[in-house]
Amino acid sequence: MLVLADFPWENAADWTGELRRQATMHQIYVPAEIPDRASIDAAVVWKVPVGFFDGMTNLRAIIVPGAGVDQLTGSDAPFPDVPILRLADPIMATRMAEYILSVVLDHHRQLGRYRDQQHRMVWARHFHRDPADIRISILGMGVLGKKVAEYLRMIGYQVAGWSRTPKTLPGIDVVTGEPALLSLAERSDVLVCLLPLTPATRGLLDQRLFDQLPEDALLINAARGAHLVVPDLLSALDRGKPAAAVLDVFDQEPLPSESPLWCHPAVTVTPHIASLSNPITGVQQIVRALDKIDAGEPLEHVVDRRRGY
Amino acid sequence: MLVLADFPWENAADWTGELRRQATMHQIYVPAEIPDRASIDAAVVWKVPVGFFDGMTNLRAIIVPGAGVDQLTGSDAPFPDVPILRLADPIMATRMAEYILSVVLDHHRQLGRYRDQQHRMVWARHFHRDPADIRISILGMGVLGKKVAEYLRMIGYQVAGWSRTPKTLPGIDVVTGEPALLSLAERSDVLVCLLPLTPATRGLLDQRLFDQLPEDALLINAARGAHLVVPDLLSALDRGKPAAAVLDVFDQEPLPSESPLWCHPAVTVTPHIASLSNPITGVQQIVRALDKIDAGEPLEHVVDRRRGY
Repeated sequence: MLVLADFPWENAADWTGELRRQATMHQIYVPAEIPDRASIDAAVVWKVPVGFFDGMTNLRAIIVPGAGVDQLTGSDAPFPDVPILRLADPIMATRMAEYILSVVLDHHRQLGRYRDQQHRMVWARHFHRDPADIRISILGMGVLGKKVAEYLRMIGYQVAGWSRTPKTLPGIDVVTGEPALLSLAERSDVLVCLLPLTPATRGLLDQRLFDQLPEDALLINAARGAHLVVPDLLSALDRGKPAAAVLDVFDQEPLPSESPLWCHPAVTVTPHIASLSNPITGVQQIVRALDKIDAGEPLEHVVDRRRGY
Repeated sequence: MLVLADFPWENAADWTGELRRQATMHQIYVPAEIPDRASIDAAVVWKVPVGFFDGMTNLRAIIVPGAGVDQLTGSDAPFPDVPILRLADPIMATRMAEYILSVVLDHHRQLGRYRDQQHRMVWARHFHRDPADIRISILGMGVLGKKVAEYLRMIGYQVAGWSRTPKTLPGIDVVTGEPALLSLAERSDVLVCLLPLTPATRGLLDQRLFDQLPEDALLINAARGAHLVVPDLLSALDRGKPAAAVLDVFDQEPLPSESPLWCHPAVTVTPHIASLSNPITGVQQIVRALDKIDAGEPLEHVVDRRRGY
């Protein structure tokens, strides 16, 4: 097949090179090289400008090289009525679980407090709770959420989940629906957002939710910036509910220098690194999808446009 | 039995209270209350001044309320020839494993680098290795070392161990002897010290060992301060081997304000909190030992005075 590949990241050349190396059965073109738009069979794209798909009359599928497709489907650019596939790279779930676990352990064992003490040369010990007494709620129980829950359970934390569709997972109480979300927040010492971004989840992390949190709660957003209403968070932090926030994703990335999040003492900013896509395993998933498109086989991880993921 | 209890910590009253609550079959006295030194059957002590045991002619055992006994057996104060018992509280091993895992994850996922970037409002992403490519060596494979190895293995790190006596543990290469220690250091991206402090291990973390480390290695000492030769570490850090150190224990605690460790940019200081003893579970272990002494049953966790642990 003839495949148009347009990776948006700083290491785009690594991805294109890896795709050419692995996808030996297909011809890979970057946008500047396209011979004839009508000849393109498949497009690997993250986000596109208006008119990007014009003339691609024979396009058979779009592959988004990531776990979320909101940056494509949520844009104003119209896109053709072909299947949109996303990646479900198990390695990315593992990377996400490492990140969430490291943030939770740092919070639980108060290592930030000890870093502050070191700066002031203060020697003071603080008792901490058992993991079994720390209630962690995960919003979004897909591939990422399940792996995060598995890691947190291994360490002994009390884990619950919130999911759009009812799910049964061993040892984890998974609830659904908005009333259940608010009562789940009431019993969340740590609230982790891993939801897909859809019209239903946009702005979900808002004042109404924060008001339900217990004292000293920690908010972690590693999903999409638009899940969070930043002014609501800033005023909620002033009231100590949540007491702290760790944010890996932002409405605008890189986070603009004028954002008050950068310097807020209760906010930790990481530059969208919770689960960096890995060119080698990511491309394996892309090639697997291309081969299925080529062979006319049933496709995996096809986005439901109505749900948005 | 008549038991003398002398806990040295800031929360000594919690420990004494808990011991009185749980040890209903015994009478618990603190030093100021002792009616008659010859009547004392057992002593629960951490560290003692010279002459502490004078007149305790009927003492049957000494219980040290911690995992290490070097502060007692390594002192100049003579102590009676009775069994010395230490605690092997499984909860303390779990607490230690949480601490080591949080330090390792923070290092692996470069969260310190991202914290520095946040202070400077820098948005830059850095790739990181898979856990399977990070080699972690644990010095000391007792109750603590085994639990730490188990936690690190769950996350996928490559774990090896060094132990005085040969040990077989599934999935972990455990080596013994000094030549093996130096070659183990060569392949240690992270070196974790959890050894008991004995004449054989005092000053083990020295220049000769640091010289073997690979580039970018991390040293973690959560055992005893006297394992580490501080001037050797400071000059080794200047040469970047190790690149960083996380220290939870110090020769003198609290760490004196004139110590260069407090302000060294590559050193993280925590105030001996890796595994805080827990009064409830710690006292359970003490009461279990007291009951066995009282009943004349075989004792557990008796220190071998020759080995020092």
